[in-house]
Amino acid sequence: MEMLDLLQKVTAASGFTHSAGVEVVAADVGNVTMELAKKPALLQFSGFFHGGVLAGLADHCAGAAATTTLAPGKIAVTVDLHINYLAPANGEKITATAKCVQTGSTLCVVSVAVSSIRGNEATVCAIATVTLRVVDMPRMG
Amino acid sequence: MEMLDLLQKVTAASGFTHSAGVEVVAADVGNVTMELAKKPALLQFSGFFHGGVLAGLADHCAGAAATTTLAPGKIAVTVDLHINYLAPANGEKITATAKCVQTGSTLCVVSVAVSSIRGNEATVCAIATVTLRVVDMPRMG
Amino acid sequence: MEMLDLLQKVTAASGFTHSAGVEVVAADVGNVTMELAKKPALLQFSGFFHGGVLAGLADHCAGAAATTTLAPGKIAVTVDLHINYLAPANGEKITATAKCVQTGSTLCVVSVAVSSIRGNEATVCAIATVTLRVVDMPRMG
Amino acid sequence: MEMLDLLQKVTAASGFTHSAGVEVVAADVGNVTMELAKKPALLQFSGFFHGGVLAGLADHCAGAAATTTLAPGKIAVTVDLHINYLAPANGEKITATAKCVQTGSTLCVVSVAVSSIRGNEATVCAIATVTLRVVDMPRMG
Repeated sequence: MEMLDLLQKVTAASGFTHSAGVEVVAADVGNVTMELAKKPALLQFSGFFHGGVLAGLADHCAGAAATTTLAPGKIAVTVDLHINYLAPANGEKITATAKCVQTGSTLCVVSVAVSSIRGNEATVCAIATVTLRVVDMPRMG
Repeated sequence: MEMLDLLQKVTAASGFTHSAGVEVVAADVGNVTMELAKKPALLQFSGFFHGGVLAGLADHCAGAAATTTLAPGKIAVTVDLHINYLAPANGEKITATAKCVQTGSTLCVVSVAVSSIRGNEATVCAIATVTLRVVDMPRMG
Repeated sequence: MEMLDLLQKVTAASGFTHSAGVEVVAADVGNVTMELAKKPALLQFSGFFHGGVLAGLADHCAGAAATTTLAPGKIAVTVDLHINYLAPANGEKITATAKCVQTGSTLCVVSVAVSSIRGNEATVCAIATVTLRVVDMPRMG
Repeated sequence: MEMLDLLQKVTAASGFTHSAGVEVVAADVGNVTMELAKKPALLQFSGFFHGGVLAGLADHCAGAAATTTLAPGKIAVTVDLHINYLAPANGEKITATAKCVQTGSTLCVVSVAVSSIRGNEATVCAIATVTLRVVDMPRMG
């Protein structure tokens, strides 16, 4: 509950995730789910979610999932991200489900599935693997 | 010239690249450079450009570079993207330079460097490799 | 049954997979498991399996898993491979389990887990995502 | 000179790189070139170099290039590797050229190009990006 609240606060606070409208829908140690509703600023020319937006959601969700496994005061920042696009993200919203498959004092590895949601149907539209580095949480202004 | 105009028109038309403010600054067969100025909706919590925004710019620039090598009526859409983050993107703007290293009737591969620009200094902050598939251009409107 | 025999024959016939000693242990449509026993020619300086050998096993197993989903006369060849190393491959053998997560007329995507086996214990030591292209089977001999 | 000798000694000492016959042909701080001559144990069913062998050579060459940038007693071990196959590796030998594009106290990133050599002609047949972690050199026997 607290973890969910904290992640939602950070996500909604500012910047790309605030502007895009990313919502944190579930969070447990090593597992985080986020969603993002369709709006014009997130699409490409065909009217589907832009690949960069999927990558951005996967990246943010992976960072959250990795960070939930770390000691207080530590966060995980992305080293590299690999994403495969499997189907057009043509739904009303997309959800990302991130699972931390390795955590350590230096590095974490997270698997992410991004689904396109249309009514009751979910189609996996991208899968990603994200490698992250453990760093001290930056002090906030 | 015409190629640059066409890419700029598509980029500015709508969606994520319109909303973000991506500008096409140079285009030749197989080589495209784009830039993106800093604004709040593009940042992460530290005030640097968000990794997803770098991935989105790299993705869009790679698609443009690959498409310039194709026959009229064909475009390249991303199959997978791998991006390594090398330095904080803490400049006033970022630029992406994409070079198509392989083009064929089915697939293209593009290398992209993303630099963070601060005054006269450019620092490479990410490198990406993008694999794309050649498809018929979707009809507009 | 036939599928398993065919894959084993191709794997054992010649080249790297013959020389390394790769065995096909299970095969179903879209799912293939292979294993490889430890021997000096497969190791790196610490005495663990070499990362390149893990990549080679993942690549071969992914190609087999994708090919089982295709029409007769078609095979899948690797376009790109991304592998994360999670733990030292310090067992007596390694196994790769490949699952085809997307198949189409042009491209396939396969997820692979590589485990290090020591007695009754299996540790996932690498995960890979492989993108493949569908081509006509080359004529042999 | 000394660097080249040391890398050649480690490469030839044992295991996969010894068995495959990997040769170190040039080494400078952050830049290493290796080559590998064709032989049956390195091929796939078409008679070209196996993709796993290209990945293995890229991995080893990247590790060497990264390690040349580190303080004595430190080595770089692979975290993840992404390789794109661009053309059949149908030459008499393959060469890998690795360039360290980032080095730090924790992580290194290396770009590698693998070429297929046939007579006087070199064709780039794969490009790879390798992320490595800096660790203490393990004690040898």
